[in-house]
Amino acid sequence: MAQKPSIPKGTRDFSPVEMARRNYIFDTVKVIFQRYGFQPIETPAMENLSTLMGKYGEEGDKLLFKILNSGDFISKVPESELQERNSIRLTNRISEKGLRYDLTVPFARFVVQHRNDISFPFKRYQIQPVWRADRPQKGRYREFYQCDVDMIGSTSLLNELELVQIINDVFSALKVNTVVKINNRKILAGIAETIGEAERIVDITVAIDKLDKIGLDKVNQELLDKGVSETAVEKLQPILKLSGSNAEKLDQIEAVIGGSEVGSKGIEEMRTLFAYLSGFELNTEVELDLTLARGLNYYTGAIFEVKAKDVQIGSICGGGRYDDLTGIFGMPDVSGVGISFGADRIYDVMTQLELFPESTVASTKVMFVNFGAAEEAYCLPILAKLRAAKINAEIYPEPAKMKKQMTWADRKQVAFVAMAGEEEMKQEKVTLKNMKTGDQQLLSFEELINILSE
Amino acid sequence: MAQKPSIPKGTRDFSPVEMARRNYIFDTVKVIFQRYGFQPIETPAMENLSTLMGKYGEEGDKLLFKILNSGDFISKVPESELQERNSIRLTNRISEKGLRYDLTVPFARFVVQHRNDISFPFKRYQIQPVWRADRPQKGRYREFYQCDVDMIGSTSLLNELELVQIINDVFSALKVNTVVKINNRKILAGIAETIGEAERIVDITVAIDKLDKIGLDKVNQELLDKGVSETAVEKLQPILKLSGSNAEKLDQIEAVIGGSEVGSKGIEEMRTLFAYLSGFELNTEVELDLTLARGLNYYTGAIFEVKAKDVQIGSICGGGRYDDLTGIFGMPDVSGVGISFGADRIYDVMTQLELFPESTVASTKVMFVNFGAAEEAYCLPILAKLRAAKINAEIYPEPAKMKKQMTWADRKQVAFVAMAGEEEMKQEKVTLKNMKTGDQQLLSFEELINILSE
Repeated sequence: MAQKPSIPKGTRDFSPVEMARRNYIFDTVKVIFQRYGFQPIETPAMENLSTLMGKYGEEGDKLLFKILNSGDFISKVPESELQERNSIRLTNRISEKGLRYDLTVPFARFVVQHRNDISFPFKRYQIQPVWRADRPQKGRYREFYQCDVDMIGSTSLLNELELVQIINDVFSALKVNTVVKINNRKILAGIAETIGEAERIVDITVAIDKLDKIGLDKVNQELLDKGVSETAVEKLQPILKLSGSNAEKLDQIEAVIGGSEVGSKGIEEMRTLFAYLSGFELNTEVELDLTLARGLNYYTGAIFEVKAKDVQIGSICGGGRYDDLTGIFGMPDVSGVGISFGADRIYDVMTQLELFPESTVASTKVMFVNFGAAEEAYCLPILAKLRAAKINAEIYPEPAKMKKQMTWADRKQVAFVAMAGEEEMKQEKVTLKNMKTGDQQLLSFEELINILSE
Repeated sequence: MAQKPSIPKGTRDFSPVEMARRNYIFDTVKVIFQRYGFQPIETPAMENLSTLMGKYGEEGDKLLFKILNSGDFISKVPESELQERNSIRLTNRISEKGLRYDLTVPFARFVVQHRNDISFPFKRYQIQPVWRADRPQKGRYREFYQCDVDMIGSTSLLNELELVQIINDVFSALKVNTVVKINNRKILAGIAETIGEAERIVDITVAIDKLDKIGLDKVNQELLDKGVSETAVEKLQPILKLSGSNAEKLDQIEAVIGGSEVGSKGIEEMRTLFAYLSGFELNTEVELDLTLARGLNYYTGAIFEVKAKDVQIGSICGGGRYDDLTGIFGMPDVSGVGISFGADRIYDVMTQLELFPESTVASTKVMFVNFGAAEEAYCLPILAKLRAAKINAEIYPEPAKMKKQMTWADRKQVAFVAMAGEEEMKQEKVTLKNMKTGDQQLLSFEELINILSE
């Protein structure tokens, strides 16, 4: 019996129109990555579970897609374990591989595995799908693409500068208005240290993060509820009320946390980065934002997040500096910094704002109408000439009704239709119809090639 | 503890150099597919197992990578089934999705699922990885790329012509000498029918296929051993001794199987295709080859296989016509024809023959040496100008030792190195070193941009 075909929840097919638009984003991003000296790598879809497990927290472990071992996987499972019916324990027995969850951990694994072949500092980009067994919802998929660009093996803040420039160049090219929010993990650590709550950095950041939503009073209450002392909350007030330019904000922060060594280092880093940035005209806004709390468990310096200004959507790009990403794979003390562009969200933003150029869609320049055997034989050598001249050209494969062929060309958004019947054949010419304007011209082969090459 | 990182057997990482070479193949193929009016689609890495199972034979079912259901998958398995310890049966309980095994079945599923949005005839290409749990060996991987191009919804032999033209254009562009072997399932059916062994088409073809290896006598013996009658084997002799041009071969075949309706249809199809092909100058040889037996269980007309002439390796491209691919998904009687380029084997052939152009590898045009803060500040605006002029440019991120920076540029195959020390800064100039020739020039910014834009 016939099956009704479908695809797994949270996955998608991409039609030619969607492919053209997605490739427009990927191609833009790639060209700019290369302009800054980054080179592509790719890693396998499958990684050993030993590489992936424990890298994304307990929740992440659950969201990994695991691949069943081949062959007679169940025969080797001890009876007692089978009886236990513990899915997590059993997974270790019957699965050794998983689908990659992001591009960062595979990159760290790549760097360590190929350390002898790599010249550090290593600048790589990687554009590949990742898979997460998340609950699918609007804008969240189980298969989606990340576009990562990372530099590993240099502590210079020049790298942070270049990442902001890349963000600026990418979104300028795509015509998306953005603001880059920047924070620094060292400043957050300095704050926690200054108020005597060095261990509470996450609690404090999470509370600060709610400022916009719940207001200052409630944030203060939450901090007290979490056991932060009244003195500490008092000390925090200037930080919660930050205002002015990035430089002014840094001054205000320094007044509070200047006594902390790590905090001062963070302020210095930010001042250096903003000084670098002041030398360039950027389309994107750059804003110091202490509420930015992404990746606090692995970022050690700058933290980046990019928001689209004209669409209500989560961040469309983000990243930061990590001082020990490769340590988990036995290669300590290698600092890196990187960002990841979320292709699917950028696609959604551009669709909503109608930012895709019309020309990304059409791919065939001219379709020859098929009037029958004799006309077909007349057209085939012309078609070959056009293709040799690098013009995308095709002939309808059958002598179907004219209307059917024209509808097909129209739906495919072919720019021109070429027709050669008895009259054209006698004159050794072709009639070319512009599908947009409806204009028709009788042309020699040479004229045809010239017009279609434009 | 540190883990020693590795990747699953049969999978690969791709370095920047390998990526550049692979992209050279993919880009060449894509451009030519588009030149013939084919448009890209993509499908998810994961398909429902109901879509995949039973489509590749019993062996294929085993070679599918299956994905473990998320959550508490084992709790719902009945006790009796658990006790049975039958891995195949259990798989159905704990896995619903698998990784795609080829691009053909997902394409058939795509066509049926989106039938209302597609204008037939539908010409699509698809370049994506596929996964097979095969035993890894030299040249055979568990993750590899296919480049498929198919036309569905037209029975015209013009489509077969265009596929041969595409093969010719792709391998001409890649400079690989090839021979395209063509067979026709209908001719094979005509042979089997004529000798009164219509059901034995596969046995007969498999025997014929051994002609080169074991010789005529042993082939005849094998046919007799398989129960083909002596009269039938006698009748087969002219077919086994085919010689001459493609047209002559078709005449010899016709003399034997002209009485078979399906056989005559196959001969007619081949004559039409060869007549089409005679109108074009092709670099690739085209050869009728009855021993070609790929995909006999689903191909219904032409069968294609492409061999590299200068390297001993399996086929590097293949395909054929299928009259009912979408029938399994409830959409009968849609004829299609397509071919698949094996990117990994093409890569191996091109590596062996050293066919990759040198220019595919390098990506950065110029690297600025970093001499320290003042020199860096002088270089950054120049760097921005170069990038604005679409030149791939970078600066070494730290004021490391000169030798280290030059070695880095050299290993990355950067074409030029730019240097600006005290003297250059005073003169508002830059020294540019050609890394290939060693030549150095003192240049103004404008001259620099002009030279690097060449």
